[in-house]
Amino acid sequence: MGDDYALIGGVFNQDHARALRFADQLALDPGRTYRDIEALIKGESALAPEDRMQVVTVATPNFLHFAMAEKLIDAGFNVICEKPITTTVAEALELAQLIEARRVVFAVAHTYTGYPMVRQMRAMIAAGLIGAVQKVHAQYYQGWINPVIRDPALRRSVWRLNPAMGGHSCCIGDIGVHAFNLIEYTTGLTVSELLADIDMLEPSNALDVDGNVLLRFTGGVKGVLCASQIATAEENNLQIAVYGRTGALKWSQENPNRLQHLQEGKPLSIVTPGHAFNELVARQASKLPPGHPEGFIDAMGNIYRGVAMAVRGQAHDAHDFPRIEEGVRGMQFVEAVLASARDGNRWKPIQDR
Amino acid sequence: MGDDYALIGGVFNQDHARALRFADQLALDPGRTYRDIEALIKGESALAPEDRMQVVTVATPNFLHFAMAEKLIDAGFNVICEKPITTTVAEALELAQLIEARRVVFAVAHTYTGYPMVRQMRAMIAAGLIGAVQKVHAQYYQGWINPVIRDPALRRSVWRLNPAMGGHSCCIGDIGVHAFNLIEYTTGLTVSELLADIDMLEPSNALDVDGNVLLRFTGGVKGVLCASQIATAEENNLQIAVYGRTGALKWSQENPNRLQHLQEGKPLSIVTPGHAFNELVARQASKLPPGHPEGFIDAMGNIYRGVAMAVRGQAHDAHDFPRIEEGVRGMQFVEAVLASARDGNRWKPIQDR
Amino acid sequence: MGDDYALIGGVFNQDHARALRFADQLALDPGRTYRDIEALIKGESALAPEDRMQVVTVATPNFLHFAMAEKLIDAGFNVICEKPITTTVAEALELAQLIEARRVVFAVAHTYTGYPMVRQMRAMIAAGLIGAVQKVHAQYYQGWINPVIRDPALRRSVWRLNPAMGGHSCCIGDIGVHAFNLIEYTTGLTVSELLADIDMLEPSNALDVDGNVLLRFTGGVKGVLCASQIATAEENNLQIAVYGRTGALKWSQENPNRLQHLQEGKPLSIVTPGHAFNELVARQASKLPPGHPEGFIDAMGNIYRGVAMAVRGQAHDAHDFPRIEEGVRGMQFVEAVLASARDGNRWKPIQDR
Amino acid sequence: MGDDYALIGGVFNQDHARALRFADQLALDPGRTYRDIEALIKGESALAPEDRMQVVTVATPNFLHFAMAEKLIDAGFNVICEKPITTTVAEALELAQLIEARRVVFAVAHTYTGYPMVRQMRAMIAAGLIGAVQKVHAQYYQGWINPVIRDPALRRSVWRLNPAMGGHSCCIGDIGVHAFNLIEYTTGLTVSELLADIDMLEPSNALDVDGNVLLRFTGGVKGVLCASQIATAEENNLQIAVYGRTGALKWSQENPNRLQHLQEGKPLSIVTPGHAFNELVARQASKLPPGHPEGFIDAMGNIYRGVAMAVRGQAHDAHDFPRIEEGVRGMQFVEAVLASARDGNRWKPIQDR
Repeated sequence: MGDDYALIGGVFNQDHARALRFADQLALDPGRTYRDIEALIKGESALAPEDRMQVVTVATPNFLHFAMAEKLIDAGFNVICEKPITTTVAEALELAQLIEARRVVFAVAHTYTGYPMVRQMRAMIAAGLIGAVQKVHAQYYQGWINPVIRDPALRRSVWRLNPAMGGHSCCIGDIGVHAFNLIEYTTGLTVSELLADIDMLEPSNALDVDGNVLLRFTGGVKGVLCASQIATAEENNLQIAVYGRTGALKWSQENPNRLQHLQEGKPLSIVTPGHAFNELVARQASKLPPGHPEGFIDAMGNIYRGVAMAVRGQAHDAHDFPRIEEGVRGMQFVEAVLASARDGNRWKPIQDR
Repeated sequence: MGDDYALIGGVFNQDHARALRFADQLALDPGRTYRDIEALIKGESALAPEDRMQVVTVATPNFLHFAMAEKLIDAGFNVICEKPITTTVAEALELAQLIEARRVVFAVAHTYTGYPMVRQMRAMIAAGLIGAVQKVHAQYYQGWINPVIRDPALRRSVWRLNPAMGGHSCCIGDIGVHAFNLIEYTTGLTVSELLADIDMLEPSNALDVDGNVLLRFTGGVKGVLCASQIATAEENNLQIAVYGRTGALKWSQENPNRLQHLQEGKPLSIVTPGHAFNELVARQASKLPPGHPEGFIDAMGNIYRGVAMAVRGQAHDAHDFPRIEEGVRGMQFVEAVLASARDGNRWKPIQDR
Repeated sequence: MGDDYALIGGVFNQDHARALRFADQLALDPGRTYRDIEALIKGESALAPEDRMQVVTVATPNFLHFAMAEKLIDAGFNVICEKPITTTVAEALELAQLIEARRVVFAVAHTYTGYPMVRQMRAMIAAGLIGAVQKVHAQYYQGWINPVIRDPALRRSVWRLNPAMGGHSCCIGDIGVHAFNLIEYTTGLTVSELLADIDMLEPSNALDVDGNVLLRFTGGVKGVLCASQIATAEENNLQIAVYGRTGALKWSQENPNRLQHLQEGKPLSIVTPGHAFNELVARQASKLPPGHPEGFIDAMGNIYRGVAMAVRGQAHDAHDFPRIEEGVRGMQFVEAVLASARDGNRWKPIQDR
Repeated sequence: MGDDYALIGGVFNQDHARALRFADQLALDPGRTYRDIEALIKGESALAPEDRMQVVTVATPNFLHFAMAEKLIDAGFNVICEKPITTTVAEALELAQLIEARRVVFAVAHTYTGYPMVRQMRAMIAAGLIGAVQKVHAQYYQGWINPVIRDPALRRSVWRLNPAMGGHSCCIGDIGVHAFNLIEYTTGLTVSELLADIDMLEPSNALDVDGNVLLRFTGGVKGVLCASQIATAEENNLQIAVYGRTGALKWSQENPNRLQHLQEGKPLSIVTPGHAFNELVARQASKLPPGHPEGFIDAMGNIYRGVAMAVRGQAHDAHDFPRIEEGVRGMQFVEAVLASARDGNRWKPIQDR
């Protein structure tokens, strides 16, 4: 990453004086420490193309993603955007059209797809190593909202629980969408329909902090996705299990280097990164000798590397990154969950990709 | 157990010659190796009460449980019965009435409640150590049906997949009911409503081999229960997680001696059997020094010990065993799951206990 | 086991009144509840051979093992004896001669060799699945002596720390000998030489409570064995790792169903009991479906079953149990450790088997 | 790290044309891509102090460490040096004197001390949370040399197995020294004496590829350290366990976020990074929310950050890094191991720090 990226400037704070102090600490050019996104676009666009920021990351509260990303893309900037990329599907589709029109590189921060063993999992399923998928299970359990959820004052301090800033969903939009992305990323399947039950826990709380979702995939496979921010004292317990006709693959984010490969009639096999026997995508995502744990930052680095290669026109399957399509899918998922919960827990379709 | 139980006789096989050979191998009295349940009841009843079989275990295919248990109870025998105890709720309730009338000891083979750390979990929740329960997650994943499910000939060889022998449900009735029992046993909560989606996988297969169930408890708590027999190459992956206001407890059958206790603002704590700091029920269920794994047979032994004490009139909280009520609850669960799935995945009530 | 064993009588307590109360609780014949080992031998020998106790278990403090076992064997009884079987090698060899002369079945309580995955490990090494052994590592860490070791009064309450009752060694004799037995059992190799450092921790403590032992095997392979009873708060952390030219096998008693099979150039493989792909010895030692944990009691049960079959003359490789040879080896090991420590940590030979 | 470090130049290859191609790929100044260390020192020294390289990393085969580090330090450069920092203790002491004289910042690449949970371990022991240390166990098992060790041709391709390039030790110097450093780092104890047995495995191989070391600490505590590069198919299995009077701490590099805290009379506690309850040093070493794994690169980054702060004169306990003292200790350890093995496995002193 060090070779691919250097931090040049940005909009670091709503309070410009603070932003300048931050830039000073990092020895950044104060002239490229902008007041707002409009100023950034204006200032950078005035530079020669080779001197401009090559990639701009949007990592604000959810309600700002769309407006900022739209302006940046419209002005021809490559963008890495936090998820959920917008607060509605309609906005997400608008972004998708604009990206198509402006021909910029756009990535969604689905960090987990940067883990070597997640890429290994996808490659093994695609290669038919577990047979046709017949059941999918994913869960993302956190507990961090638990200490604030019952105290309205504390709750107001959390932007994710404020519909004006976080959008229509808290738990599903923030972490459910990661589990959803991981399912479609690893299996290559498309969720066609879902049925959801969500929980606000407290009557005075407006947004979901827990949800259980039944899934149906194109082709008839069934699955389940559970997400929670009130799973008390859980850290970032994201897990996925995909069962095929002849084998299964299981991965857990809290121990991300051990991909479990279950096979009918054989012992359990534990696949780890850094080995010659791994799939190409996993080998290229792995930068360390076997046995050295690769962390979350490395996963994000893999995403960033893919973007850098795309910016340079070197795009390559083995350096994949989540694109606008995944962002749109995520919003479709969130809206379908909310619709199912709102409509008495009925099945809701998700449009095909 | 050795002190509590001795195998005296029984109905060991439909083929009486084989049953006699079996009895001979075990040096059992051929005179107490009966042709059928009616002969057993007649033969044993002819003996003086102190010489009769004290407890009869019913461990046949599901469709025979009710008829056998009914006759035994009616004749005054204490019974340990496999689950699901009947094939319908109506039959289960009939048994309940008969047990009440005949005043016999009746236990359901919910083996998992015999594990020391499951008993510890229940005691800790009851003592308020995790606060009021706010979310429940249970799953029971097996893969053993996977190799037979797609071949109709092989499938016919499995009585659990034959409605005439297994009853109306395969996966939910066989293992979903264990997860359900574990939820109500550990939390003390009552499931009031559920919504289910089940999967037969193959059009020619009549019974569920996978199911995902959304749960609502009396008082408003929500939960999820997942069961599968097509989770390829899984062995007996039964897990339960209960999240309370201030902490959580997680247990997994495949590593049954490590009860995880998550607490807000504190490190994860791993409770193991055999320690003085454990709850009474766990201490009494544990017969080994710390660090020696206690197995499935020991769990079943704990259930049997409770039954033996009840037979002797020494019943005691710390030597609990699953009774008819749990059997009825199990059948209510199975029927509600089937009804929800049949009725377009709608919520179905479960009657209060 | 239930079919193989019934408890008939014994010497249950030095205080005969207490022994009789114990027998009464278990509904045992008071006439076969003996005052001492001499009375037992006399009483049982007076019965017809087919009515006599078939097997007598010696599970007393160490200093009594030899005297009791010697008398029982001399009188023709089959014996299961706790380890260390004697307090000196000389006594152990004397027992060996007597067993040979009287042609009785004799087993040492090396329980750990009854675990299915330990038997699997031995069979896999013998089958050449990891190539020629090139390194061995074993450890047995407990912490139970830690709370008593510094208080002389508490210490006196523990017979293992009293040379008059426990013999010349505490830690090495009690648990080091298990690790040693496991090494020779699984590898089939013979330790030819060792160098040891032991720790009494407190000047006023006479016996070792910790020891580290360097090993050399016939053929030149090297290894290490660590044992401790002051590994604070450890439960029964017994582990063994055997590295061969092409692979390795690792087993841990606290999670005894997961045998790790490391292979050069392949993913880690986890072997579990109950599968058709396992070795015969493991399959015959395993009585449960895959995924159900098998415990310590089951391990002991496997040893007992082997003894029962030997008593019946049905001895068979797959129902192995530790014999006098293992008992002698254990004593040779203990004496060599003490000699090396006494002699300035020099290498000491262990006689070949 | 991004803010602290930028790669400016260096000596990248013995073949200067290759070094220039490498620099070009990274868009580095070819004028600062030097032919050798002398050219680097000359070129950088010609620049104004504020424009010079602030830190130079020495990451060559072992035999070059001393010569390069000596010249750099003598010329006033801050240095981060791979371990073992020299091939003899004498050279290491020479470096120490020079560092003292030139007042430069010098760090040894003991990466493992950068892990948040290793720093937490040290802080907890220092705070008395496990009581006085009474036993220490460390091991570092790798298998990477196994496939080359028996083939002399392959062996020659590995510089670590060539005494001319790797120095007097392979296994102990490369990884044993890490385990040794971790012991002294976490416990604060000083090893005063050791007794070692090493293994070259093949007669034609000159350097140790495996070693077991008995340890004695100032104050009488005993311990054991095992290192191997022929532990077939092990990846980077580095573990340390420290047992105190009232508790113990256990850490394993392959799952570095889970520090096990054993306490007498209490359940096992698992400490993870990112929590407010952690010690300051761990909190400052941790850059991620709880549950996101921190990897090896992050550990190294923590070391680098400490160096950057020292260079800026901001040195602070919580941003510690391994210094020359640790480098000297490492060499003392390696020499003592070799001496003990050479001298018939006798105890050898290690000079006090």
